[in-house]
Amino acid sequence: MSQREIDLNGLRVAIVGATGMVGQEFVKILTQRNFPLKSLTLLASDRSAGKKVMFKGEEIEVKETSPDSFNDIDLALFSAGADISRHFSPIAAQKGVVVIDNSAAFRYEADVPLVVPEVNIEDAKNHKGIIANPNCSTIQMVTALYPLHKVNPIKRIVVSTYQAVSGTGSAAMEVLTAQAKTVLAGEPVTPHIYPHQIAFNLIPEIDVFFDTGYTKEEWKMLVETRKIMHAPAIALSATCVRVPVYIGHSEAVNVEFERPFPPTEARAILVQAPGVRVLDDPTVNLYPHPWMAAGTDETFVGRIREDSSHPGGLVMWIVADNVRKGAALNAVQIAEEMLKRGWLGG
Amino acid sequence: MSQREIDLNGLRVAIVGATGMVGQEFVKILTQRNFPLKSLTLLASDRSAGKKVMFKGEEIEVKETSPDSFNDIDLALFSAGADISRHFSPIAAQKGVVVIDNSAAFRYEADVPLVVPEVNIEDAKNHKGIIANPNCSTIQMVTALYPLHKVNPIKRIVVSTYQAVSGTGSAAMEVLTAQAKTVLAGEPVTPHIYPHQIAFNLIPEIDVFFDTGYTKEEWKMLVETRKIMHAPAIALSATCVRVPVYIGHSEAVNVEFERPFPPTEARAILVQAPGVRVLDDPTVNLYPHPWMAAGTDETFVGRIREDSSHPGGLVMWIVADNVRKGAALNAVQIAEEMLKRGWLGG
Repeated sequence: MSQREIDLNGLRVAIVGATGMVGQEFVKILTQRNFPLKSLTLLASDRSAGKKVMFKGEEIEVKETSPDSFNDIDLALFSAGADISRHFSPIAAQKGVVVIDNSAAFRYEADVPLVVPEVNIEDAKNHKGIIANPNCSTIQMVTALYPLHKVNPIKRIVVSTYQAVSGTGSAAMEVLTAQAKTVLAGEPVTPHIYPHQIAFNLIPEIDVFFDTGYTKEEWKMLVETRKIMHAPAIALSATCVRVPVYIGHSEAVNVEFERPFPPTEARAILVQAPGVRVLDDPTVNLYPHPWMAAGTDETFVGRIREDSSHPGGLVMWIVADNVRKGAALNAVQIAEEMLKRGWLGG
Repeated sequence: MSQREIDLNGLRVAIVGATGMVGQEFVKILTQRNFPLKSLTLLASDRSAGKKVMFKGEEIEVKETSPDSFNDIDLALFSAGADISRHFSPIAAQKGVVVIDNSAAFRYEADVPLVVPEVNIEDAKNHKGIIANPNCSTIQMVTALYPLHKVNPIKRIVVSTYQAVSGTGSAAMEVLTAQAKTVLAGEPVTPHIYPHQIAFNLIPEIDVFFDTGYTKEEWKMLVETRKIMHAPAIALSATCVRVPVYIGHSEAVNVEFERPFPPTEARAILVQAPGVRVLDDPTVNLYPHPWMAAGTDETFVGRIREDSSHPGGLVMWIVADNVRKGAALNAVQIAEEMLKRGWLGG
């Protein structure tokens, strides 16, 4: 199929995990961005099969994922957990489908590109059928930091995250609501999904613990940042914390560069950076916060200042919608950029 | 008065700002700790004068603060804001009262001791009538870090805070409740007290902004840490963030020392440290969080691990009740330690 034919006819797209939170966001984003579609197939577990999802005014029935689901598909967007990805992604890839996988199943394999379009879209060209979508907290951080790294290499990053419950899924959002109501009613909370109460509380544990004392979420930020930015020498320490926010991850980031980086220069670069919006004017209480970032596409950066503990270093505050830029949007953007370059559906 | 007489008769104590959140906590803590009292005078603004406060089963009438309020007082605990402290603390001190002031009014003056009992109680000896109680986020951090600093000097601290709304006062706690109810009812929130919605949101702004891009809260952590720990060379960068939590400040802290500090050694020191309780066992989801720290007296430390971005450095997670150890309790502990040493009421 030539580029012109794709433009006219679009791609045959499957969403795996279509009834989940990120799956639903995929459907929304394909509509909002008018993604060139020839067909849309919605796949999920047998539990969700038969459900109807609205897409551009039409009902689409969700089907159970099977090997045959990937016949006559050009692009499959996976967000159904690592086990489903591990099972079905290779099957789909073998049928010639390009898989963009939101799980952590393949992210760390050397021959699987891990892509943030604003940073390393070129990596997507050399895929072997599967392209991995990075972890939410990594995506927004590298989107904001890569433009700076390009002009003055980053040596070290210390990051503390403030991560919304939607990162866990829609059930966690319901748990936050239910627990908040319970607390406001003066009743005791029984923890569910999370090991401790999350309403009006914080939990400094995301994903499993490693022997190093770091969690897998914290480890991901190190390993994925190095891979996406092609910067294996970057040092990084993360503390990842779940906060009682529905949508929008926030990050306090201290960065050391090879040379001093004046905040005014960094701000000037970030104002021009793709996918980044600078909101940084203390005189009018302007800085990003998750409530304003929810539902948007940009990675917001504010509180840009010199690191008072490391002259020449920078501190900033990075916020993005973790369900969109941190998951569904980034995957769709990968597909869009590949289409533009003729790497998909050709 | 000899030490024996104090033990029998106690001190004549005044609480300035007695109807505020910290003022009320003073009353509670004096009862809980059976502080040796001869009399308790409750002072506030004319607006609150006439209110009745229960103390050990008796009603005490709140009186308007005036210069004469400090006649026949040994110890005045101030928590009524910097303006009230600036006006009345010198008057009280001149009458021979020992003032322990919870505001920022005098903290940075060279001849005013800034005291965390576990760190620098000796400084309290040389007071000139006024002793300053440090900022909440500083108190819990130095309580946890000083025992480590003593054996291996700290060079640099990077800290991100997660601060509860009670740090702003009781009205902010009511705002969090009201906004949470509004959000749960699906209605839009009109910000109040804070410049943005705080329910299910974060605000990376505490206290006023300086030209450096840091807030005063962030600056306080640097300046107060140096003063309390007698360590003027410590480098520190803080990002201070308000979170939708009622009580309990949390801090993600990366620390660099003169020599490598193995986590096992740090843990062994902290287990023995005064005022500190280590909660650190990932295998059973054990780490501190604000909901469990609220209402307690300890500074809790968990998630102790080697800094993956700086070998030999440490990362930890520090949580304490900001109204108690971060304010009222620390002030009462200063008085208790001074009494023990005969520096008060003698």
